[in-house]
Amino acid sequence: IGSTLLEQIESQSPYLRETCGLDLQLRGVSNSRTMRLASRTEGPITFTEPLSNETRPASLPEFVTDCLQANLPNTIFVDCTASDELPSFYPRLLESSIAVVTPNKRGFSGAMEFYSMLRASANARRTPLLHETCVGAALPILGTLSDLVRSGDTVLSIEAVLSGTLSFIFNSMRQGVPFSQAVREAKTRGYTEPDPRDDLSGMDVARKVLILARDAGVELELSDIEITPLLPPEALQWSLEQFMEKLPSLDAHFATTLEAAAAANNQLFFAARIDCEERAAQIGVQSVSLDHPFCALSGADNIVAFTTTRYRATPLVVKGPGAGAEVTAAGVFADIIRAAR
Amino acid sequence: IGSTLLEQIESQSPYLRETCGLDLQLRGVSNSRTMRLASRTEGPITFTEPLSNETRPASLPEFVTDCLQANLPNTIFVDCTASDELPSFYPRLLESSIAVVTPNKRGFSGAMEFYSMLRASANARRTPLLHETCVGAALPILGTLSDLVRSGDTVLSIEAVLSGTLSFIFNSMRQGVPFSQAVREAKTRGYTEPDPRDDLSGMDVARKVLILARDAGVELELSDIEITPLLPPEALQWSLEQFMEKLPSLDAHFATTLEAAAAANNQLFFAARIDCEERAAQIGVQSVSLDHPFCALSGADNIVAFTTTRYRATPLVVKGPGAGAEVTAAGVFADIIRAAR
Repeated sequence: IGSTLLEQIESQSPYLRETCGLDLQLRGVSNSRTMRLASRTEGPITFTEPLSNETRPASLPEFVTDCLQANLPNTIFVDCTASDELPSFYPRLLESSIAVVTPNKRGFSGAMEFYSMLRASANARRTPLLHETCVGAALPILGTLSDLVRSGDTVLSIEAVLSGTLSFIFNSMRQGVPFSQAVREAKTRGYTEPDPRDDLSGMDVARKVLILARDAGVELELSDIEITPLLPPEALQWSLEQFMEKLPSLDAHFATTLEAAAAANNQLFFAARIDCEERAAQIGVQSVSLDHPFCALSGADNIVAFTTTRYRATPLVVKGPGAGAEVTAAGVFADIIRAAR
Repeated sequence: IGSTLLEQIESQSPYLRETCGLDLQLRGVSNSRTMRLASRTEGPITFTEPLSNETRPASLPEFVTDCLQANLPNTIFVDCTASDELPSFYPRLLESSIAVVTPNKRGFSGAMEFYSMLRASANARRTPLLHETCVGAALPILGTLSDLVRSGDTVLSIEAVLSGTLSFIFNSMRQGVPFSQAVREAKTRGYTEPDPRDDLSGMDVARKVLILARDAGVELELSDIEITPLLPPEALQWSLEQFMEKLPSLDAHFATTLEAAAAANNQLFFAARIDCEERAAQIGVQSVSLDHPFCALSGADNIVAFTTTRYRATPLVVKGPGAGAEVTAAGVFADIIRAAR
């Protein structure tokens, strides 16, 4: 995501300067191996290959300390990692008026106490803390939720399909493809993690659900989310090779479930539901009638439906591709522009 | 919309002060009859009945001049009218760093030259000019489009159903209700203008399409939009009474069109399509296959589907109720908060 983002910023820089009066400069950059930080007297770092020939070893604490000491106005710190450690630096950055933009779910889906601290740090100096891409990549989901909450709407429930991978698998199965083949196809297309069980376990979805719930004002911990697993417990004991080999043994189960749903004129989705008043969240296979918003899903789309006091008769729905480097980087970029303005 | 907005701001003020550090104050207010402006030494005007006992006659030029002279930092000018005149004051306000927030389509759907001037005025001092509610009320449509364009995506086409009234009428007809009855029902529910032909003419949709097209970077005039009218030309000559009386004479035409669509396994919508590369926009009855995003529409929902370079395989879709005082005011409120931050 990081390198795609730099490419997007570089090609869009002239437009932003001319039409929005925005001049984005790269003052520091790091990957997992090396890092570069421009000193106050130096010009900005180039967006193209910013780390070529760089030998300074990467160090998160040093990088953050340098950002804080540089004390430049309008600094934006962008975390494009999936690191557990990096979010622990957000509060200090935010309290020093350094905006934080990130697609990293870890900081928002850890302990509720840390989430509250993040929010308080951002609010203390009204420093932007933008994480739109944590859920559904660049789809306008968390920004919309924030607008609803800030303008005084009450979120009653959120229904969502938040895994492009699982969306693809279920869409394929609905078209008659057996479960095993749908999983293999998703793996071949690069839609899954190297071990598809990382997607099938629902843990990634659970983190997204937790962020949605918390942003809607519901104080929950990850352990409060009820996950009905897609796979039988023994499937998690197998090696990856065994799992891929034994996949067809699961086909009959899914075929039966799908048939039962079809017979009831329903469709199946691996979906999430947050009931805000009950402070409850569930994830699992859900059977919905054909007029449900989910039934408009295709490909590897994500979908989120907000039912609120103001959107009660029919929900506010956002739908579309919710993963991929290009759209995720674009969403991070949009958040950077928002923070810069 | 104005009074609903004031109620929403009043009840949400404590939350905004506590959690976002935002203190919104009402310094001036006007309706079509009277206006009140707080002098520098006065406290803010109350959100409840701000014009009670006010006798100063309303005057737009005086109101604007007073805003400019007061020269308060972080002023936001909110236009909740449908006035043709008021937008002519936006450029001066924007150039004086006064943010403009409005659901009024007139300023953005007049001459292209004026639209360009508005954009230039806002960009000159990077003053917020927020008009999310011009299209689909509070649905995240124009903000999303702005994010796409700013982050360097290229909008290829936009497909949309932008009239809640027409959405309701077509949804009713799909369920077997004759056209005449659907129009009457929409009128009874207050979904239509006093003369339903104002909705059926497609002119309101055309203004929204023009704003979408221009925000996507396509320079168009209102007269460039091809509108295929829903009604035969003679229907526009009738008086309102005659029109309501003669409505059933149009039922057979719509019944035939609907049957033809159903026979082809299609559904009918009064929809808009913008083809950005061709710089073309069409509005009219459209027949789409059942897997089209429109087919997820219910009630009086609006829907917009953006196909872009990054959202090419499946579009980014936003759907939900796109009209009504409560959601429109909420969208204006969200824009105010955005401008204030």
